[in-house]
Amino acid sequence: MNFISDNTAGASPNVMAAIAAANDGTASAYGTDLWTQGAERRFAEIFEHEVAVFLVTSGTAANALALASITRPWGAVLTHEESHVADDECGAPEFFSDGAKLIGLPGAGNKIPPDLVTRTLARFREGALHQVQPQALSITQATECGTIYSLDEIGALKAAAAPRGLAVHMDGARFANALVTLGCSPAEMTWKAGVDVLSFGGTKNGAWAAEAVIFFDPAKAGELKWRRKRAGQTLSKGRLIGAQFDGLLADGHWLDLARHANAMAARLASAVDKSSEARLAWPCQANAVFPILSAALQTRLKEAGVGYLPWSERSLPEGVTLAEGEVVGRFVMSFSTQEAQVERLAALIEA
Amino acid sequence: MNFISDNTAGASPNVMAAIAAANDGTASAYGTDLWTQGAERRFAEIFEHEVAVFLVTSGTAANALALASITRPWGAVLTHEESHVADDECGAPEFFSDGAKLIGLPGAGNKIPPDLVTRTLARFREGALHQVQPQALSITQATECGTIYSLDEIGALKAAAAPRGLAVHMDGARFANALVTLGCSPAEMTWKAGVDVLSFGGTKNGAWAAEAVIFFDPAKAGELKWRRKRAGQTLSKGRLIGAQFDGLLADGHWLDLARHANAMAARLASAVDKSSEARLAWPCQANAVFPILSAALQTRLKEAGVGYLPWSERSLPEGVTLAEGEVVGRFVMSFSTQEAQVERLAALIEA
Amino acid sequence: MNFISDNTAGASPNVMAAIAAANDGTASAYGTDLWTQGAERRFAEIFEHEVAVFLVTSGTAANALALASITRPWGAVLTHEESHVADDECGAPEFFSDGAKLIGLPGAGNKIPPDLVTRTLARFREGALHQVQPQALSITQATECGTIYSLDEIGALKAAAAPRGLAVHMDGARFANALVTLGCSPAEMTWKAGVDVLSFGGTKNGAWAAEAVIFFDPAKAGELKWRRKRAGQTLSKGRLIGAQFDGLLADGHWLDLARHANAMAARLASAVDKSSEARLAWPCQANAVFPILSAALQTRLKEAGVGYLPWSERSLPEGVTLAEGEVVGRFVMSFSTQEAQVERLAALIEA
Amino acid sequence: MNFISDNTAGASPNVMAAIAAANDGTASAYGTDLWTQGAERRFAEIFEHEVAVFLVTSGTAANALALASITRPWGAVLTHEESHVADDECGAPEFFSDGAKLIGLPGAGNKIPPDLVTRTLARFREGALHQVQPQALSITQATECGTIYSLDEIGALKAAAAPRGLAVHMDGARFANALVTLGCSPAEMTWKAGVDVLSFGGTKNGAWAAEAVIFFDPAKAGELKWRRKRAGQTLSKGRLIGAQFDGLLADGHWLDLARHANAMAARLASAVDKSSEARLAWPCQANAVFPILSAALQTRLKEAGVGYLPWSERSLPEGVTLAEGEVVGRFVMSFSTQEAQVERLAALIEA
Repeated sequence: MNFISDNTAGASPNVMAAIAAANDGTASAYGTDLWTQGAERRFAEIFEHEVAVFLVTSGTAANALALASITRPWGAVLTHEESHVADDECGAPEFFSDGAKLIGLPGAGNKIPPDLVTRTLARFREGALHQVQPQALSITQATECGTIYSLDEIGALKAAAAPRGLAVHMDGARFANALVTLGCSPAEMTWKAGVDVLSFGGTKNGAWAAEAVIFFDPAKAGELKWRRKRAGQTLSKGRLIGAQFDGLLADGHWLDLARHANAMAARLASAVDKSSEARLAWPCQANAVFPILSAALQTRLKEAGVGYLPWSERSLPEGVTLAEGEVVGRFVMSFSTQEAQVERLAALIEA
Repeated sequence: MNFISDNTAGASPNVMAAIAAANDGTASAYGTDLWTQGAERRFAEIFEHEVAVFLVTSGTAANALALASITRPWGAVLTHEESHVADDECGAPEFFSDGAKLIGLPGAGNKIPPDLVTRTLARFREGALHQVQPQALSITQATECGTIYSLDEIGALKAAAAPRGLAVHMDGARFANALVTLGCSPAEMTWKAGVDVLSFGGTKNGAWAAEAVIFFDPAKAGELKWRRKRAGQTLSKGRLIGAQFDGLLADGHWLDLARHANAMAARLASAVDKSSEARLAWPCQANAVFPILSAALQTRLKEAGVGYLPWSERSLPEGVTLAEGEVVGRFVMSFSTQEAQVERLAALIEA
Repeated sequence: MNFISDNTAGASPNVMAAIAAANDGTASAYGTDLWTQGAERRFAEIFEHEVAVFLVTSGTAANALALASITRPWGAVLTHEESHVADDECGAPEFFSDGAKLIGLPGAGNKIPPDLVTRTLARFREGALHQVQPQALSITQATECGTIYSLDEIGALKAAAAPRGLAVHMDGARFANALVTLGCSPAEMTWKAGVDVLSFGGTKNGAWAAEAVIFFDPAKAGELKWRRKRAGQTLSKGRLIGAQFDGLLADGHWLDLARHANAMAARLASAVDKSSEARLAWPCQANAVFPILSAALQTRLKEAGVGYLPWSERSLPEGVTLAEGEVVGRFVMSFSTQEAQVERLAALIEA
Repeated sequence: MNFISDNTAGASPNVMAAIAAANDGTASAYGTDLWTQGAERRFAEIFEHEVAVFLVTSGTAANALALASITRPWGAVLTHEESHVADDECGAPEFFSDGAKLIGLPGAGNKIPPDLVTRTLARFREGALHQVQPQALSITQATECGTIYSLDEIGALKAAAAPRGLAVHMDGARFANALVTLGCSPAEMTWKAGVDVLSFGGTKNGAWAAEAVIFFDPAKAGELKWRRKRAGQTLSKGRLIGAQFDGLLADGHWLDLARHANAMAARLASAVDKSSEARLAWPCQANAVFPILSAALQTRLKEAGVGYLPWSERSLPEGVTLAEGEVVGRFVMSFSTQEAQVERLAALIEA
């Protein structure tokens, strides 16, 4: 049983079917094909807004391109200290932005407290010569801890960022998982709340390799076509990504997939709640569960061949500490996680 | 009829079948999956040599990563002035290498004359402070003009590059097309002839988006894993690329696909040879044909809805000039080009 | 009375005389002149070690070149969160290193606790793909808070850094000030304690614009000549820097200048100790004094036209907090600070 | 007798005196001092225009900062193939611009033919995805061959560059030498002729290390302060550069120095004209002379201990070729070249 990540799954059948359907005849290259154009139109509909869309093959590329577009080389990006852009992309944002600085902020559950944004900005005098210039705020929705920002929280972050003109980027590698939990519209979770640029994640949602950088102000996206090309992210057979989004976005399939993953996580979280050997490190709000596991439970899971990741304690809520032998474990559900497996895992944990 | 490029096709049925077969169950992420490992083993067999292999999704990324690995930021890459790395990648090699310089050399048929390498190197004193340091030679096989280097020519280029310690890179976006023409082994066309690093092209050959950077001295490849990650080219669901190569490389499928494309090109070239309104700008040696088209023929092709690209005259052989109204046209054949269409085109040209 | 920084002074008379003496006849350009060579020899004598020396015009350039030489673009530099390289150079290290990451560590008095190096390294698994690779540790001697590391503390940092192979860089913008306090040899404070690369500061010490990057293992310095040239730091009339170091280093002039500056700081610190309206935020160990000033004293200083900088409270020692209205002030002494002015300031503070 | 370069001289007495005069008391740091502000005012007067001025210590830095300011990383700079920025700065423009491409154009006497600009631009389709985007034209006045562009020629280059919106940069490392030959105003040779950004050279003119990046549209210079800081080119004791320009620019001293150097070159050129063993490769228009030297004359110069540089033949005028044994020699005069030495050299050549 492998709960290590939602990227260990393949692609959903709808995505596979869409790729197969697109594999017919010739198509114009480099993202000028009909499937890519179709994806662009779908995004405009989904977000109820004019958008500029750039399809790429990895979340790392989407995030790094997005941040490079809104930050000068001497600029700084405020982000959570454990965010993917700060800690899991081997310096990709620094590479794509020609050396901008990521400033990592602490915060329980990997959520950035708005007042910390304000206090941090106060340390960087506007226009000062010697310091880098804060120019962007990057938040992750859902976070790496499986938590989500409420609409009010996003709005509060925007309010903290706006006085200094920071652009707000949302890393939406698990955008759909957050969206179905909040039950709001994609527009409400993004531009209506103050998001300027979004990394829309298709891969973890059920595609093979399909991510989109989405600008809600197309006028600001003018240079991204060159950045993307120059980064080797402009596929010649661009319909491969366009078709994946076709399969994903049609008929709300992407939301169905996310609902399934979230439901599996909720089932596991409820087992943790009942267990005397585990407790939740953070509330389960998307498709991942982070129980604090007793030593005995760790042994039992190991013997049962359950795959999960040990996780960092840096963002535990105030007051939560680990007893000796305890660890935080990460269990991530995907569109393809089978209910039977989750039930078996739940049984192991509740036992 | 679309002869604009070999990247307007989709993927071969074998490749699609391999992807579908790989879409089953969970797999470890970031290129540690069985399909990627299988591709790595196949490349070692095909090249009869220990290799370090890095799968990526675009030729631009493969070339830029390869060149960045063998060139310091103050280094220089000698290449043809019309090579893809010099003229079609929007500065990707400069980006990935943190600012290395590409020095474009002229040469008929986009082939670099070995003695020009020698003369160019003489202009750059070894170890000099003020000039960039030549550190790599990049050749394209087959070239953008559809010509190919013979094994002796590759050897002569290596001999010109070796005294100054230049690493030799081969851009093999159309590697298979060149190989089946030469009829030699992959080993003979690469490390035996002096190639240090190869961009092995799967996409134009029949995949969706599958390229490989191949080092023949794995000891020199140690840092590429970070370069690739940092460039957003390390797919989380890495089996997508591994499976494409699985479909392509099994049972010599890649060579069959290339043989078909080359045969289609040869058929068209023979029509050009017979035509009074066209002549070949360069010999047809791979899967592309470059006829010099009379004005009348251009009109006829346009009326028939034939898609092709006008091409640069910079690398015409000495003595070949265009009469008024003539243009060079590029017609590229892919694995999926249909014989009937080529016959119709041939008929138009011979008419 | 201006105590804002030690960079508000000009150059010492000896330095001016050395420049004037060097301004005679022609000299070979780009750092191949006799004065530069003389400086290189002096550094070898001063450090009792073979050294590779690269003269530049600013501390920012010295630090950024030094760090770029020991860090790959996907590497990380551990440093204090308030160090000059992290917070005052507008991202120069990121620029020169093509995007390496600076990881800021907290620590009282701007000194990095060795065990925090160990704990931080534990968060970065060796050879891991997704995280940047820690490759250097940068310490400042004397620190921006006017404190200094003891030889044992430098050794302990080296011991924490060594198991992971981190190179140790010392930002010695105020190297002489620290040295005369410790009373040890330059060798003891650098390579004998584990420092691999030093930014040796001449500017604050009494030159106009003269800094040196010094490698204690010349074999590792091979590429810096190109990095420096490419950064526009290779002066054509290189003797300008060589001569400044000539004036500074001859007959221990640099140490005399530092002793004067430190003595002035000690005089002021003793006044703070006696004052009921001020107390030292950190011990005065070099040429800067950081009193915590009462509101009344701030007013008195303002009325007297005393120039000083308000300073950050981030690195106050544990337990030290500011009462309402208090601020930390920075007063820096230079080679040219006049005793009479310090006495007047002392009187104001003691009053 | 050393005629190798105009950078083998030291500084003019006026410059030394200005530095000494500035070395008094404290001054605010990082280019906010009175001397720097004075230089800025002088430049506005000299150019009869509002300007944004950035003082730096090397021509390499001035050029690289200027080009980085007017070119995106995927942009291209058209320049002469033997210009200093293309061939003598170890890739500094590529470094500062984060990877922009320099496109080297041929042209006799290192002057770019305007129609070649037009033809080159035609090869780069506006807004095209795959190619870099031409965004700047960089010309050198006087050129590395000692020739100068007339005002009409500069205007013609501007006219060729303007339709595509290229910014025009002038590398004025020997600006004064060109200016006194043309006898026009600084305004006429720059913004009135279409120059947008100028690297104004003080070093070769008679300073130690003083160059200025000058924008004729200050609104476009907004970001250069961060670029300069980040490049380690913002001196803390900025008055060192300000004072040099003070000494240089006061009372037309800079023009006097250039007139002397040019006169020395003219004297030598007249000797070459009379010699049977030498002829001018290019007309002598500034402070350098490039005779084609017979083998016998080379021997005579060597025996007399005359220092000069062998020079490239790439930009010889059409029809000029070297006989066996002949070489092009470069002899450069500076503000400090002594008439007696030139007379001795002239005698050797005329003999």
